[in-house]
Amino acid sequence: MPVRDLQYPTEPFSTVKRHKEQGSYSLETIHQIVNSCPMLHVSFQPPDSPFPAVLPMIGQMGSFARPSADLGEVLDLYLHGYVSSRIINLTRDDPSSPGLPMTIAASHLDGLVLALTPNSHTYNYRSAVLFGHAAVVTDAAERLYAMELITDGVVPRRWAGSRVPPNAAELGSTSVLRVTIATGSAKIRTGGPHDERADMADDALRGRVWTGVVPVYSVLGAPVAAGYNRVAPVPGYLEEWRNETNKDTEEYAREKAVDKS
Amino acid sequence: MPVRDLQYPTEPFSTVKRHKEQGSYSLETIHQIVNSCPMLHVSFQPPDSPFPAVLPMIGQMGSFARPSADLGEVLDLYLHGYVSSRIINLTRDDPSSPGLPMTIAASHLDGLVLALTPNSHTYNYRSAVLFGHAAVVTDAAERLYAMELITDGVVPRRWAGSRVPPNAAELGSTSVLRVTIATGSAKIRTGGPHDERADMADDALRGRVWTGVVPVYSVLGAPVAAGYNRVAPVPGYLEEWRNETNKDTEEYAREKAVDKS
Repeated sequence: MPVRDLQYPTEPFSTVKRHKEQGSYSLETIHQIVNSCPMLHVSFQPPDSPFPAVLPMIGQMGSFARPSADLGEVLDLYLHGYVSSRIINLTRDDPSSPGLPMTIAASHLDGLVLALTPNSHTYNYRSAVLFGHAAVVTDAAERLYAMELITDGVVPRRWAGSRVPPNAAELGSTSVLRVTIATGSAKIRTGGPHDERADMADDALRGRVWTGVVPVYSVLGAPVAAGYNRVAPVPGYLEEWRNETNKDTEEYAREKAVDKS
Repeated sequence: MPVRDLQYPTEPFSTVKRHKEQGSYSLETIHQIVNSCPMLHVSFQPPDSPFPAVLPMIGQMGSFARPSADLGEVLDLYLHGYVSSRIINLTRDDPSSPGLPMTIAASHLDGLVLALTPNSHTYNYRSAVLFGHAAVVTDAAERLYAMELITDGVVPRRWAGSRVPPNAAELGSTSVLRVTIATGSAKIRTGGPHDERADMADDALRGRVWTGVVPVYSVLGAPVAAGYNRVAPVPGYLEEWRNETNKDTEEYAREKAVDKS
């Protein structure tokens, strides 16, 4: 039986300091936030730029050595990119070991929390950040593993539902990065607004200002066929996933709009 | 009459190199993406960390000197944070002029673009990145301007609809950052999938794989009142904004799911 509830180490740069009670270092919690986030924000410091780079990218966590590993186990983050893009070139050319330092953020907005006064306004959200070192994957089998992982991370079962494997030109134009994770943390806020005592005691204010949460959730809309599409109807794997995801996402935002009793 | 269609300068670190046709340097385009994004990702390099920091934050662009400035004009980015948070401390203590270098990303996912082969899969999206230098705002009037700008950037007219101005304790616990923008760029992808000639000529493949776009859009759900809320119904300014935003966001994702004729 695997060790349960693994935690990332708390480094000075990764520790949640404000609202510590919202912080988490659980691998399962952090990996779940990352793998359900359709767009990650990847940051690194190019040697010739006065500013850090931040790129929106698609990525997924997995284990090539043990593909059946679950979300609570030690995993790598896989990203892919055009073979001659700056992030790939910098990673390939980076002389340092264990690789180019990267920070990856995954954030979900779940609700706008409206209190009596702007200073008590906040969001309901789930955010994770991972710190690691990137290397370009050269092993052919690991590259294919990562490409399938990333594709199915966007739409489950899409890899098998499309033309695979990639041909030589496709393999030549796409690079895969493996980010070995050093540590990470998450911060999660749920529930209704909380106000200061003085505002709560102000009856005129309480009678004037609406307080509560506007749940926010992402919707996967009705598919729009390409002009050259010849397949009808929309495949079952796509519709099942879409309906299930939409239901779960909306339910989460609504449930988390109120304080747990 | 103001100069029209101002463009940010293209620095080596800010130039869109892949799919140049999707790039934009228009101030109006970039500022529009930033101000409609409920969660920005802000990156900077802490001096004592081996990794860049990436924080999800709330921010808005505006002009304190000329509050009526429109989105196409030169604007500053305002962020706010807890007075002793790392980003505020680092900015306050940064000895360099013109301030701590920061990169700010704003990204909207608009659709999953599903092609015949995984390599031709992509997203419809709008992403902007700004590069600038941060300073802590000390002027009391500019601080109030920024707090109202940021609050109304989340829910228009909420500032006036809640208890303002902030009291001394609130002003003491919140700091405002002004990021003076050096440059920026945007990248926007719209339309249906595009496939390679060889795949398009493969009738068996065309008859087997569904191609098209799953539009993705964010929904502001039905407001959930706080347990201590005493105001009914939900205020008109909130419901009007919610309905209008939901309509616009869904329409955009659907319209951009097909190629322009």
